[in-house]
Amino acid sequence: AMGKAMGLVGLLLGLVLVPAVLVSTSLRHGAPPTEAVPGPAPADWELAVDAVPEDSLWPLPQWLHTSPRQLQLAPGRFQLVHGAGSSAQPSCGLLQDAFRRYYEYMFGHSRRRRWGRRPLAARAEPELSELQVVIEAPDPGCESYPHLGSSEAYHLTVTEPVAVLKAYEVWGALRGLETFSQLVHEDDYGSFLVNESEINDFPRFAHRGILLDTSRHYLPLKSILTNLDAMAFNKFNVLHWHIVDDQSFPYQSIYFPELSDKGAYSCNLIYTPADVRLVIEYARLRGIRVIPEFDTPGHTQSWGKGQKDLLTPCYNKGQPTGSFGPINPILNTTYDFMTKFFKEISSVFPDAYIHLGGDEVDFSCWKSNREVKEFMKKQGFGSDYAKLESYYIQHILDIVSSYNKGQIIWQEVFDHKAQLKPDTVVEVWMANNYAHELSSVTGAGFSAVLAAPWYLDYISYGQDWKKYYSVEPLDFPGSEEQKKLLIGGEACLWGEFVDATNLTPRLWPRASAVGERLWSSRNVTDLQDAFRRLTSHRCRML
Amino acid sequence: AMGKAMGLVGLLLGLVLVPAVLVSTSLRHGAPPTEAVPGPAPADWELAVDAVPEDSLWPLPQWLHTSPRQLQLAPGRFQLVHGAGSSAQPSCGLLQDAFRRYYEYMFGHSRRRRWGRRPLAARAEPELSELQVVIEAPDPGCESYPHLGSSEAYHLTVTEPVAVLKAYEVWGALRGLETFSQLVHEDDYGSFLVNESEINDFPRFAHRGILLDTSRHYLPLKSILTNLDAMAFNKFNVLHWHIVDDQSFPYQSIYFPELSDKGAYSCNLIYTPADVRLVIEYARLRGIRVIPEFDTPGHTQSWGKGQKDLLTPCYNKGQPTGSFGPINPILNTTYDFMTKFFKEISSVFPDAYIHLGGDEVDFSCWKSNREVKEFMKKQGFGSDYAKLESYYIQHILDIVSSYNKGQIIWQEVFDHKAQLKPDTVVEVWMANNYAHELSSVTGAGFSAVLAAPWYLDYISYGQDWKKYYSVEPLDFPGSEEQKKLLIGGEACLWGEFVDATNLTPRLWPRASAVGERLWSSRNVTDLQDAFRRLTSHRCRML
Repeated sequence: AMGKAMGLVGLLLGLVLVPAVLVSTSLRHGAPPTEAVPGPAPADWELAVDAVPEDSLWPLPQWLHTSPRQLQLAPGRFQLVHGAGSSAQPSCGLLQDAFRRYYEYMFGHSRRRRWGRRPLAARAEPELSELQVVIEAPDPGCESYPHLGSSEAYHLTVTEPVAVLKAYEVWGALRGLETFSQLVHEDDYGSFLVNESEINDFPRFAHRGILLDTSRHYLPLKSILTNLDAMAFNKFNVLHWHIVDDQSFPYQSIYFPELSDKGAYSCNLIYTPADVRLVIEYARLRGIRVIPEFDTPGHTQSWGKGQKDLLTPCYNKGQPTGSFGPINPILNTTYDFMTKFFKEISSVFPDAYIHLGGDEVDFSCWKSNREVKEFMKKQGFGSDYAKLESYYIQHILDIVSSYNKGQIIWQEVFDHKAQLKPDTVVEVWMANNYAHELSSVTGAGFSAVLAAPWYLDYISYGQDWKKYYSVEPLDFPGSEEQKKLLIGGEACLWGEFVDATNLTPRLWPRASAVGERLWSSRNVTDLQDAFRRLTSHRCRML
Repeated sequence: AMGKAMGLVGLLLGLVLVPAVLVSTSLRHGAPPTEAVPGPAPADWELAVDAVPEDSLWPLPQWLHTSPRQLQLAPGRFQLVHGAGSSAQPSCGLLQDAFRRYYEYMFGHSRRRRWGRRPLAARAEPELSELQVVIEAPDPGCESYPHLGSSEAYHLTVTEPVAVLKAYEVWGALRGLETFSQLVHEDDYGSFLVNESEINDFPRFAHRGILLDTSRHYLPLKSILTNLDAMAFNKFNVLHWHIVDDQSFPYQSIYFPELSDKGAYSCNLIYTPADVRLVIEYARLRGIRVIPEFDTPGHTQSWGKGQKDLLTPCYNKGQPTGSFGPINPILNTTYDFMTKFFKEISSVFPDAYIHLGGDEVDFSCWKSNREVKEFMKKQGFGSDYAKLESYYIQHILDIVSSYNKGQIIWQEVFDHKAQLKPDTVVEVWMANNYAHELSSVTGAGFSAVLAAPWYLDYISYGQDWKKYYSVEPLDFPGSEEQKKLLIGGEACLWGEFVDATNLTPRLWPRASAVGERLWSSRNVTDLQDAFRRLTSHRCRML
């Protein structure tokens, strides 16, 4: 039934629905060069025909009970409404927007007119007339931004004649609306049905992110927004926006417009303040935080084009080579610039955290520069350039702290022993023995975000989603307290080989595997069951 | 200049042009798990600014001379016309269609109105007023189909005041139009320019194919047509349509409609006779042959659903298991069916060749079947099931020959010593020591098509196009006569993990590497030069 419903949606999108691209087969030309891909038996497909409702839920809720009893929805009558006792009112733009959005996901633009053709009485099923959404917190949060401590829990009951979705905050309601929409399915005759159900759900991890890189290749706004939609379908709640890097500086700064004037690939390939506001608001309406990353002191070649004396001049045999290394950490002007720059960033991005990067700093240029060497001597750093790196980072951390922003940094900053504020979040990205790193980071009392096993820009033949799905984030040595410090993870799509032409099929539904791992219960690990649900879920996303 | 022009086109397409996805970079998070991808120096990009005309040609013509002298084209005045002495007339629909198509590729739909705004006199460059196309053969071929022996050679001169494109047949004119359109570029001010040039061009190999697989996943017509466009941009001339296989039978047969009624994924996911005609005609207009593959006796599970007794029933300990193996080779009804079926195929598909498959036949089911065993004994095949396979294939070859069709088969049919007609083409697909196989096949006097190194469904991180590009098809042991028997190659995109959502970005521009290898001169092997041209070419294709 789902296949049929999605076939129609697919046609509307100009795509014809086919069994999921994830499907492997047992017979083909030649063996894959990397690994054998065990194919599902043809019988796997048969199951979809008699699918139970939970066969299409993704990520799987923490607790659910469904009954075989089905209710029918009449698109022309069915309503998403604020329930009695909800602190949210029709003036809650965020929920109104979500109601409209989910109505259309469920019934489609073009279907509203169809319901009248077939009298509802022709069917035996009783009718579900509305979904009542009840926000329980005194302040529902309609105007606020989601944050690390936001409640995303919800409780959903679907029984005749009304369904009720209860959540403490609007963020939980958004997750519950997604789940409700996944429960509604269309049968072969075009009727919309939902099984009577009860669902109690909440995320396993608070930080569930997707990293997009808009520096290696510029991504048009449309790609970013489409990706935010996909994130909401998979209950992700953090867009880690790796917005600038060596290759280009598309962020249009208000204080320093020359950074993008000279550092972007072209004057069109930038994000204006209005663009940035749009991304943040589009994300907010979907319960997604936008954490910008301004990675320094390495990964900053593009910064140097629009800001004189910001980068370290490199030397060869005492002569300047004309090329530049990391941010110059020995000049006061560097910190003056950063103070002003991060003041802007702190105000443009409402999230409580800024990602400060700090990874992969190449010391060779610093080593070649006589003034840097003298500075090292004066500071008593000896020849340990990691100390100079930490000296720089320390300053940046202090600047950003002064704007009351929390900080996320890549693992090297921790590894090189910079003094971090206690609430700093360390992102673990190095694939080599990341469990040990998680152990060290949390052992030192810092929160951690895991990215290492989920570098989705790395591609290979076959169903690699299984590899991402099979990661257990808490499989690292440490106490219960340490485990609590792992606040989540991120699927990273670095941009070397990604642009608007391939972003969506490269990221989705592979990232969905990470989405379920970070949302659902630890014991949700059955690959066969996941395959069946992910197949339906992909179909629905298309 | 090209970047600017393509930026506009990209915006029209809803895509924003960014430096090609193929670009790698020297700094990134972590090293790629498979291979290091050396990035181009940033200077590579600078070259595009002062690009010479041949910097955007793909595949590179056999011989070209370009002058720095530029001519200007006025979109409102420039015309593609039949030259004096051409055997083609305005009644030649194929060329008229190509003129319209290439006009729009060069100037775009929306630009026609713009030319008036800026008086041409404001520029110093003289004007190129038209491209005259001259077909030299008595019959230009406007209504015919391209075939293995078609002439694709052309000669192009671009000098003030007119350009002349001479070709023996329309097929060469199509290739020359593509090249001419690649020479025209837009400068920063929106002027269309072309350098005075002379090009003499012809393909190195006559058979330059793309294999699409519409059985593992159904491909909507739109995907197939878009792919035909991309093929024309890269001077490919064969669509190898692997139309049915185990997984589904989307070909709607006229004589045997049950095959797709029961064997397709669904009643919508089929190719009707009208669909097939559309694909063939769309391809013909671009000088592309459509060679259908109906692979037997293996890879036929989907055939069994709509045709009773066609497949071999499998047994276990003397009991039928309910499952089926390859086509049943011992029944007369099998050959009656095939006679009728291939009669239809021979008439539906105009190409002189049909691909009969013949790969990966699994003998286990035949071995389990007592009647098959008895037949083996009666025929004196002993326990050599390859002989039974050859017995079957022999019959099919004879049937198809009787309809005056040539045959292409996968290499196993040759390996298993079936008696082949002298004009049979053997397609070499097994990656293991394919040079040796090419040597054997051509040594036995058969024509060969090389697919083995170009399985583009296999993906990996980074710029794998270089691997495909660096293949030298004639690097196999053999005489000059043998080398001449290698008539070309195919890039294969098997469909296990490919559907409409990812076909284009997965196949292009990776297949372009194969396109140049099969068209251009053997000595065109410079990866840096190819990278620069391919970057522009991708841009233009977008």
